[in-house]
Amino acid sequence: MTDLSDSARAETMAERRIRLMGPNVPTFYRTPLHIVRGEGVWLWDAAGKRYLDCYNNVAHVGHCHPRVVQAIATQAAVLNTHTRYLHESVLDYIERLTGYLGHGISQAILCCTGSEANDVALRMAQAVTGRTGIIATDNTYHGNTAATSALSSRRSPIGGYPANVRRVPAPDSLRHPDPDGTIFAAHVSHAIAELDRAGFGLSALMLCPVFANEGLSTVTPGWLDPTVRAVSAAGGLLIADEVQPGFGRMGSHFWGHDWLGFAPDIVTVGKPMANGHPVAAVLTRPDIMATFRQAFGYFNTFGGNPVSAAACLATLDVIEDDGLQARAAVTAAHLMERLHALRHPLLAEVRGAGLFFGVEFVTGADLTPATDFVADLVEGMVERGFILNRIGRHANTLKIRPPMPFSTDHADLLADALEDALRATPVPA
Amino acid sequence: MTDLSDSARAETMAERRIRLMGPNVPTFYRTPLHIVRGEGVWLWDAAGKRYLDCYNNVAHVGHCHPRVVQAIATQAAVLNTHTRYLHESVLDYIERLTGYLGHGISQAILCCTGSEANDVALRMAQAVTGRTGIIATDNTYHGNTAATSALSSRRSPIGGYPANVRRVPAPDSLRHPDPDGTIFAAHVSHAIAELDRAGFGLSALMLCPVFANEGLSTVTPGWLDPTVRAVSAAGGLLIADEVQPGFGRMGSHFWGHDWLGFAPDIVTVGKPMANGHPVAAVLTRPDIMATFRQAFGYFNTFGGNPVSAAACLATLDVIEDDGLQARAAVTAAHLMERLHALRHPLLAEVRGAGLFFGVEFVTGADLTPATDFVADLVEGMVERGFILNRIGRHANTLKIRPPMPFSTDHADLLADALEDALRATPVPA
Repeated sequence: MTDLSDSARAETMAERRIRLMGPNVPTFYRTPLHIVRGEGVWLWDAAGKRYLDCYNNVAHVGHCHPRVVQAIATQAAVLNTHTRYLHESVLDYIERLTGYLGHGISQAILCCTGSEANDVALRMAQAVTGRTGIIATDNTYHGNTAATSALSSRRSPIGGYPANVRRVPAPDSLRHPDPDGTIFAAHVSHAIAELDRAGFGLSALMLCPVFANEGLSTVTPGWLDPTVRAVSAAGGLLIADEVQPGFGRMGSHFWGHDWLGFAPDIVTVGKPMANGHPVAAVLTRPDIMATFRQAFGYFNTFGGNPVSAAACLATLDVIEDDGLQARAAVTAAHLMERLHALRHPLLAEVRGAGLFFGVEFVTGADLTPATDFVADLVEGMVERGFILNRIGRHANTLKIRPPMPFSTDHADLLADALEDALRATPVPA
Repeated sequence: MTDLSDSARAETMAERRIRLMGPNVPTFYRTPLHIVRGEGVWLWDAAGKRYLDCYNNVAHVGHCHPRVVQAIATQAAVLNTHTRYLHESVLDYIERLTGYLGHGISQAILCCTGSEANDVALRMAQAVTGRTGIIATDNTYHGNTAATSALSSRRSPIGGYPANVRRVPAPDSLRHPDPDGTIFAAHVSHAIAELDRAGFGLSALMLCPVFANEGLSTVTPGWLDPTVRAVSAAGGLLIADEVQPGFGRMGSHFWGHDWLGFAPDIVTVGKPMANGHPVAAVLTRPDIMATFRQAFGYFNTFGGNPVSAAACLATLDVIEDDGLQARAAVTAAHLMERLHALRHPLLAEVRGAGLFFGVEFVTGADLTPATDFVADLVEGMVERGFILNRIGRHANTLKIRPPMPFSTDHADLLADALEDALRATPVPA
């Protein structure tokens, strides 16, 4: 698929990356892709090969959507400054975005990355409760700041995990069924008791409502209720990290927490909200915001600047005007049907949450993760011109999370290619 | 200067801000400005009033510089994705930017805010030294993440200052002369000994090479040498936060640390590097980068994306092609002459570091900070159409830090207005 000259060129860039960015900088795929152009659900590499993007949620309304590009270009030519001056567009955006939220959430802090948003959210919970304990799952990712990386399971933080962080076993609907969420709630209750005994107390449980990094474990509406009761009884806050499920991806709902059916105290958003422009936000109730604002004089220079706000507004315009949430529901239903029709001896479970899918592969009755097989399958898909990846603790689950304009036709292209790649990928003995 | 309808409108926006952003969100000036347009060194408010921008360093090459705007618009229409794919422009930029750095610094991590950059820099130092102690001054600001805000003196962090952070008295050339930096070095040595005794040990001293937030205390080349020796002897790293002095503002040098004459181990940059587009970076030597990259799997979704890289490259193009560093030197010399010629009974000291000035006002022989007078003076300047602000521990120092295209003509406009405002501002009895 890749000719020799291209391969040599990618190798040179990879070496140049190491020289300029250092070792161990992550790339996707055995031969990293050199992507040069994007449009809608399509990406092109330097050799002109086209890929169907079944993975990137940052380009939420499609790569290089002309309305978002135009909004950025227009505003960047007029004014780009900070919120120590008054400006309408950041207010217009907060007003529109909080209009999508219930549960008394009507205020926001704009910042630049989901990491910054979660870093602030943790401090909000600490300011409100006067306690410092934090609970997250043991197979998650909520950011790369010093504070949020302490919740990450991918690589332990320098100096070890802080004593005020408790990591509870991530849900795993395939290996450890917990259909009504009582097992998860028991883990959370146990962690709350530990935090109390250690003198930290609970400030917040932070989670992704679809448990995306956990492998998109199957959960159903109401599943979190026992956990919500445990957290509430302890006076803790619920922080919904909507960086992955938010902005209509669920199809049936605009937010993951509305789909799962719980009332968060704080909602954080990031990647998709401005289609790739660096923006994120912390959304909460006025009582929580006031307490945080009293305790901590937060200001973010780039956060909520007029260009970022214009990009956010345009992204929301496209979501609304192009009916992307409804489209996600239709595409998701069709793709789910196609994925359920896949037949393969290693295929263990097809899971979905709106336009976000996990397809898990295992070997044997003990459900040994078919990690290498899925790695090969992903490479086979990339060769065929389909960009997707792996997810979950054992990286044995296909991760499918396309831009929102993905259609049923695109879903058919993907499913056909998956059928073909599944036939072609060697099964381990 | 502001008619009633405008004033009423600003008030409404201020109320709307509180409703949507919460209380205690900082704005500048007693009546916050409603800025709607920027061009070069000029800003316009909603009523059409024009202001000479003598303050904003984010719009480094001038507000809405057409080359930066064009670079953003062009790249945003072609591709905006992340560095898990290969892309030339982030590599081109790191190569060019590190070309401005000596001391073996040749690698970078791109992120989105100076806060993120400093948050990473602190962890780099901890990974390299295996120790966790951090020293900063007691009147500084290095960011708003949980970790970096622990170095901030403006408002103590929630839960108090962490035990591994030691804050040394900020230099204050007016009140506590320390012409050769030995007093500062003694404070740092004392803090190192305390960190050792407490079992943390020293990982790094983080500082702004011009001590901007400290009030731009007068320091001269070589001033940091005794401190550098103390930090080196303890095996600690020097982190130069170049968010304010960097990118040619010193006039004589591209970086503050080169002007002050010391070799940092890590350099962080932010605000000015892409003229307002949310970008920042951590720059360091390959040995430090490799250790960090081994200890911590850092990835930043928006960091170094093709649009950000294009904005960075265009900003550097303008700095180079328009000779902005040399221009800053010329303008700075002229403005310094004009500021030194100011006569006022409360004027205590005029300080400068390239195109960055502090003018301190006090009352009486005990150097009581003339905080209210300077606040009134700033308001008088805003009324006259000049945007600047205050700096330092007592907020009694005028802060003048204009965009780099600021010319000697602009400097004359500013100095003339300052003379006028100084005559008009009531002196406290």
